[in-house]
Amino acid sequence: MSNSLGKLFKLTTFGESHGSAIGGIIDGCPAGIELDFKAIQYELNRRKPGQSKITTQRKEDDEVEFLSGIFEGKTTGTAIGFQIKNTNQKSKDYSHNTDVYRPSHADYTYDKKYGFRDHKGGGRSSARDTANWIVGGAIARQILINVNINAFTTSIGDINLEKPYQDLDLSKTENNIVRCPDNVISEKMINLIDNIRKQGDTIGGTITCVIKNVPIGLGEPVFDKLHANLGKAMLSINAVKGFEYGSGFSGAKMKGSRHNDIFNEDGSTQTNHSGGIQGGISNGMDIYFKVAFKPVATIMKKQQTINSKGEIVEIQGKGRHDPCVVPRAVPIVEALSAMVLVDLLLIHNARK
Amino acid sequence: MSNSLGKLFKLTTFGESHGSAIGGIIDGCPAGIELDFKAIQYELNRRKPGQSKITTQRKEDDEVEFLSGIFEGKTTGTAIGFQIKNTNQKSKDYSHNTDVYRPSHADYTYDKKYGFRDHKGGGRSSARDTANWIVGGAIARQILINVNINAFTTSIGDINLEKPYQDLDLSKTENNIVRCPDNVISEKMINLIDNIRKQGDTIGGTITCVIKNVPIGLGEPVFDKLHANLGKAMLSINAVKGFEYGSGFSGAKMKGSRHNDIFNEDGSTQTNHSGGIQGGISNGMDIYFKVAFKPVATIMKKQQTINSKGEIVEIQGKGRHDPCVVPRAVPIVEALSAMVLVDLLLIHNARK
Amino acid sequence: MSNSLGKLFKLTTFGESHGSAIGGIIDGCPAGIELDFKAIQYELNRRKPGQSKITTQRKEDDEVEFLSGIFEGKTTGTAIGFQIKNTNQKSKDYSHNTDVYRPSHADYTYDKKYGFRDHKGGGRSSARDTANWIVGGAIARQILINVNINAFTTSIGDINLEKPYQDLDLSKTENNIVRCPDNVISEKMINLIDNIRKQGDTIGGTITCVIKNVPIGLGEPVFDKLHANLGKAMLSINAVKGFEYGSGFSGAKMKGSRHNDIFNEDGSTQTNHSGGIQGGISNGMDIYFKVAFKPVATIMKKQQTINSKGEIVEIQGKGRHDPCVVPRAVPIVEALSAMVLVDLLLIHNARK
Amino acid sequence: MSNSLGKLFKLTTFGESHGSAIGGIIDGCPAGIELDFKAIQYELNRRKPGQSKITTQRKEDDEVEFLSGIFEGKTTGTAIGFQIKNTNQKSKDYSHNTDVYRPSHADYTYDKKYGFRDHKGGGRSSARDTANWIVGGAIARQILINVNINAFTTSIGDINLEKPYQDLDLSKTENNIVRCPDNVISEKMINLIDNIRKQGDTIGGTITCVIKNVPIGLGEPVFDKLHANLGKAMLSINAVKGFEYGSGFSGAKMKGSRHNDIFNEDGSTQTNHSGGIQGGISNGMDIYFKVAFKPVATIMKKQQTINSKGEIVEIQGKGRHDPCVVPRAVPIVEALSAMVLVDLLLIHNARK
Repeated sequence: MSNSLGKLFKLTTFGESHGSAIGGIIDGCPAGIELDFKAIQYELNRRKPGQSKITTQRKEDDEVEFLSGIFEGKTTGTAIGFQIKNTNQKSKDYSHNTDVYRPSHADYTYDKKYGFRDHKGGGRSSARDTANWIVGGAIARQILINVNINAFTTSIGDINLEKPYQDLDLSKTENNIVRCPDNVISEKMINLIDNIRKQGDTIGGTITCVIKNVPIGLGEPVFDKLHANLGKAMLSINAVKGFEYGSGFSGAKMKGSRHNDIFNEDGSTQTNHSGGIQGGISNGMDIYFKVAFKPVATIMKKQQTINSKGEIVEIQGKGRHDPCVVPRAVPIVEALSAMVLVDLLLIHNARK
Repeated sequence: MSNSLGKLFKLTTFGESHGSAIGGIIDGCPAGIELDFKAIQYELNRRKPGQSKITTQRKEDDEVEFLSGIFEGKTTGTAIGFQIKNTNQKSKDYSHNTDVYRPSHADYTYDKKYGFRDHKGGGRSSARDTANWIVGGAIARQILINVNINAFTTSIGDINLEKPYQDLDLSKTENNIVRCPDNVISEKMINLIDNIRKQGDTIGGTITCVIKNVPIGLGEPVFDKLHANLGKAMLSINAVKGFEYGSGFSGAKMKGSRHNDIFNEDGSTQTNHSGGIQGGISNGMDIYFKVAFKPVATIMKKQQTINSKGEIVEIQGKGRHDPCVVPRAVPIVEALSAMVLVDLLLIHNARK
Repeated sequence: MSNSLGKLFKLTTFGESHGSAIGGIIDGCPAGIELDFKAIQYELNRRKPGQSKITTQRKEDDEVEFLSGIFEGKTTGTAIGFQIKNTNQKSKDYSHNTDVYRPSHADYTYDKKYGFRDHKGGGRSSARDTANWIVGGAIARQILINVNINAFTTSIGDINLEKPYQDLDLSKTENNIVRCPDNVISEKMINLIDNIRKQGDTIGGTITCVIKNVPIGLGEPVFDKLHANLGKAMLSINAVKGFEYGSGFSGAKMKGSRHNDIFNEDGSTQTNHSGGIQGGISNGMDIYFKVAFKPVATIMKKQQTINSKGEIVEIQGKGRHDPCVVPRAVPIVEALSAMVLVDLLLIHNARK
Repeated sequence: MSNSLGKLFKLTTFGESHGSAIGGIIDGCPAGIELDFKAIQYELNRRKPGQSKITTQRKEDDEVEFLSGIFEGKTTGTAIGFQIKNTNQKSKDYSHNTDVYRPSHADYTYDKKYGFRDHKGGGRSSARDTANWIVGGAIARQILINVNINAFTTSIGDINLEKPYQDLDLSKTENNIVRCPDNVISEKMINLIDNIRKQGDTIGGTITCVIKNVPIGLGEPVFDKLHANLGKAMLSINAVKGFEYGSGFSGAKMKGSRHNDIFNEDGSTQTNHSGGIQGGISNGMDIYFKVAFKPVATIMKKQQTINSKGEIVEIQGKGRHDPCVVPRAVPIVEALSAMVLVDLLLIHNARK
């Protein structure tokens, strides 16, 4: 149950970074969708390691292989099985932290929960599983033909993109390696990550996602509100610490007379503090939300920690890790958004 | 599906504010729990309208009646049905907004989604359903015998309780009507709400929840992480716009070398930016999170809006509404937390 | 989880025969259905006790009261809560079997599973819950406007209705109290039950259900096949011991050359051993299946049994019980069929 | 949703017979189970094609490859991904029935449901998916250490094994290729299938399954009764037409005074018409049930049928098909039984 996302469009995944492959099953994809496989691979490439100097230098090709549910290029309406080989896993050396609990990782909690753990690459807690999510999301996007989902980096450490998203040209997000659609700010962010990397440290940041042209009516009262499902999906990403939509935390400071979105005659609203969602249901305005990512826990500096016997030991990250997870998380935020929307679209369609 | 919360400890609810009763069914409550009915009613009283000058003056007794699943005071392990009569609904007058879309309410989206809507009291989008959640949560708390769940108000508008929760005496939360465990700040909050109320306006705020003594190991990889389930539950509360846990949005500004929680020999950590959860699983440290509430959409001022024909009309809130939802939301945050924890506790127990 | 039937059209129930009320919540009913409340009550009356000399003489009015999800006579698309008062429960005397395990009842297994049990009227194992199912089914039928669901008694003890259903006039089912659409056979069945009743004994039987005009395409591979969901629903009825559809157990004796249903040019088939379902999906032909009911376990004769201490005791049924469950189960079979079909219809619609 | 079996021990599968591989994901397997991989392969071999003269002569090695969720031979408690390569699929020739609806297959219903279909080897309706079930079941059996699950063939066509299962030596089931634990009857069954095969025809049959040493208390009221879940699982097997447990359809002819199972002092019963289940919950007695299989629809004789244009065409099975599905279905019945039991065991454990 806990390896699945969605109810009618449902992705179930498996895999660890050190196994021979990861993969998943998409249950509930409508039949007859002519898949654009290049678009799927394009999204995987946006997420893959080794894509720039500010991501891990680990190389994984991340090529998806579809095993079922597709016939002559079209979805058949039945289970879509797929896998992504772990091409890079053999060369890794995990012997150094066999019995050590890395700070702010899941080593300790997995050991306590399951009685032992797969210490290689974090086992199931590895962010490698997000490659599977990209596949699910890339297919979901092909169902949402007119919907535009655009995530982008809005802060790295203390460097913030302050402009409202309406003043940005979101088509520029892919123009730089940090995925911030502002030339000046993006340069600063890249420099910051690069400096942090050289220090052997890591840094957090935020991603904003804007979704345009969502049909009115998606989302279900009471416990499948659109923003609640988006929030849960985002909080499932490995380093996420917070989620807000529309006015978010700043809305908590406002008066109702200012926060209320006054309707125009066509049902659109003059402001959009609601973030495109009222009563948990899309109202046709832009949906937008922000996600907070903590700094990556693996740092190249020495840290004190303990092993399973409770002995104090020293640990230092080895190998190739991301100094900041945010640039590679942008396509993950979009992929999850797409899956949440398709799922609620199918649920909405069911009763029409 | 969308009226249920939880998998093994599952609350399903029904009801609108204008019907004869609301209620719910709890599926999966363990057998043999000797229920403290006064404790359940106590929680309902904390949420009920009319409790102070800064809440709505509407009166509802909110007495819960159990209809099944309890025998000689103990849970039988089978479905617990319950209802809460709507004692106050007959006197209400809804004729004034039959066909008007109240700004930032769910009127418009319900109409578009369902083709028509129950205009009385917001229909199913009414926050009245949260009384049902209180019942579920109050029972869940009686299963979590050693766990302490304490929510409290941390901001109203621009008035913030800046102190870290460790410096607060959380037993004082109920000492004032705004539910802030600081005598000085709470006074300011109450005055602010009272002023806002006199202006016919409303105001937002935040609630922090601290949970102590959670067993290690609750939460499931990958899509039932403890914080993701908490986040989804909180985002289901009617006015919620954001959720963060542990370091939250401020963690997004930090370096890894500062954010990482270094272990003590006993497995506890020196800091707790992780918020008691690592890899989605409780680690035995305090769990804490913050929830943002927008200002109530119904204000006593004139607002322009439209009706279902797209005609511009003017609307003004009538009757008795909350100037701020936060004080009454404190027990709701606790109730949802309790249900999420019990659900994940049962799931964890299943495999031991 | 275990008190719910269906995924998109989902009935969740609660209640025991001795409480003040039973009831349920229907989640996922489409909006805008103008409910025929008399039709719902008509189905409840077909199930209710005391309706004839061959059913229990206990009297229950079984009036359903809707509490939510309906506005001005139409479904709103939100949770439909309802309850049925237990008008007859106060007069019952359960003191005689407080600690006795009635043979072939659930007393022993409930005690072992839950550590104790609600001994009044069987607690949650009471067939009284089926009244809730009738409500769900009666609403489901109003969504399936062109579908005809007809269940009828095909055997009581050794008395069989041998004619194929095509030779019967199913509109005559309600003409007699045993619900068998053949005047001669029904008379024999009634006499048999009456004799059995006079002996203080009980008797089993079978019900066949024929469903006409089901849209093509309902049912999902692999684990939500239409007949698998029908089978599970029927096996949930209290006394059911078996389920077969189409050729059923007799099909296991056939050769493929005889069993295969040859297509006509319009896609209909010359024979219908498939029972209207191929590969788990409706093919537009009549769906038909048969359900086996064991004799009621409560008999008016003395039986040896044990109590919770393992002591041998003697027991004898008291009060008013059904000598045969079959006549009152006919509307239950139809109700479950309707809910299964609507659920799969909504799932099918979701992806069109 | 429809490619998954189980709630807490949940198998999700994908795959068609003509793709490069089939496979699945097991979600919810407890941690720390030391897997016996030979036992898993042994079960796959019992199901695999080409094992004897009375099964299809198609050859598939059916070797399972585990991709995740296992570390140093033990389950980690996280998702177990696996695949089985389709080694034989390339040589098949499907060009002959591209556009033809094979009688009593799912071709017609898939085409109508999905708008088109994967005509190779039946696409998703292929019984090849049952190999995935074997894997799930073989792992489930290793959790149920003391439980004995024994399925065996009880009839082929008109040849019946009449003896009660108590008089059989179930350890002899694997001694012959039809999997009937009686030397004389099994010989007749084999001869019948062999004759049928030579005629180019197929034949149905029944399988009985006996499960010993099931813990008391498995199964949930109301809609997850143990026998209802077993029934649904069995009805998911491709050719199954009926399911009965305990006294089954013959119980429908009995009087209560004969059918009731009288308790012994230790809680066991003198008879076992209940089939080890009372009120949907295991009572510690043997669980037994019978499953009816129709004859395989693909026959080597000419049959009239239609194509997608509604034109009458003639069809004749080619290649290598099973003349009777029953012998290879015996391990499938056991595998499903094991998964149903483990799932209900975990659900039961959750609340203790």
